[in-house]
Amino acid sequence: MESRQKNRYEIRLAGMGGQGLILAGIILAEAATIFDGKNAVQSQSYGPESRGGASRAEVIISPEDVEIDYPKVTTPDMLLVMSREAMERYGHELKPDGIIIIDSTYVHKPEKATGKIISIPVTELTKEKFGKTIVANIVALGIIVEITGIVSKDSLEKAVIKRVPRGTEELNKSALELGYFLAREKMNTIN
Amino acid sequence: MESRQKNRYEIRLAGMGGQGLILAGIILAEAATIFDGKNAVQSQSYGPESRGGASRAEVIISPEDVEIDYPKVTTPDMLLVMSREAMERYGHELKPDGIIIIDSTYVHKPEKATGKIISIPVTELTKEKFGKTIVANIVALGIIVEITGIVSKDSLEKAVIKRVPRGTEELNKSALELGYFLAREKMNTIN
Repeated sequence: MESRQKNRYEIRLAGMGGQGLILAGIILAEAATIFDGKNAVQSQSYGPESRGGASRAEVIISPEDVEIDYPKVTTPDMLLVMSREAMERYGHELKPDGIIIIDSTYVHKPEKATGKIISIPVTELTKEKFGKTIVANIVALGIIVEITGIVSKDSLEKAVIKRVPRGTEELNKSALELGYFLAREKMNTIN
Repeated sequence: MESRQKNRYEIRLAGMGGQGLILAGIILAEAATIFDGKNAVQSQSYGPESRGGASRAEVIISPEDVEIDYPKVTTPDMLLVMSREAMERYGHELKPDGIIIIDSTYVHKPEKATGKIISIPVTELTKEKFGKTIVANIVALGIIVEITGIVSKDSLEKAVIKRVPRGTEELNKSALELGYFLAREKMNTIN
């Protein structure tokens, strides 16, 4: 786990409608702010691509004493990519020390890219474990937080519970655990 | 119904956590973009007030051929206020020709204010009609759209159906109808 103490940490979650990326963005922002005491802006920009089924959510997180002046992600520190189109569109927009997490269910790992690439078949492994893909977004959140440490796991869990439908709390907690596990396993392989 | 053809129409939805304002913002943005073919940015900024239970969602809507450069609401064209704190904090931030919709369940109509004030006990009437307040946000969306015409009703309904839990479609459609009705009734009284 890397500790992030940047004044402005930019996260982009990109994929397709139906993957729950906006909910994931809201959960991450609420974990950071309501439960971790930081500041955040969470946003979605909808252009023509949204009518083609693309979906993109962004979160900017800053420490408690830093106000977020410009509320749009310019060059992400962390990019989650869950569709081929998203990879084509956003794969090259990343800080030099940034991290790309690729759902290899949908996206091939690029041969060349800026930053550190972490490729995990998130949706496929979610389906394997839970028999459905509905919580792949929550598994992805687990991966993101295990890798970046941008919010505490305790806050993340609280934020997930706050936002998911009643009756699905245990499923979603297990989804987070799967994400943590997959990220740890991957980091051990890389390091 | 006023037709809005501005190059940039700014909407702020302000109240408390649990009132579903973020969902309302997302639905409005998706009605405008996915179903009405416009552009939109939807965002929530979380600061210290969010830890005190305040909630605020913003939507900027532009025509198809106008890109949204600055993604933050500066001075809203339309403000929905669903808590006393939100009224104190945001009640004075409005364009001169702007519209404030006040949920008078929680907020007293101010004696002096910029813009046009529409005061309706949204939450109270939702409770009266449906026996619960959970769809007060959807009733509010109906009111907003009847008054501003910022998205088509057909697109609004599609966007609501896309986002609400399965099995609650009819309840939410009725909530929209209640909103349209309340707004029409109010406009007839004012005009």
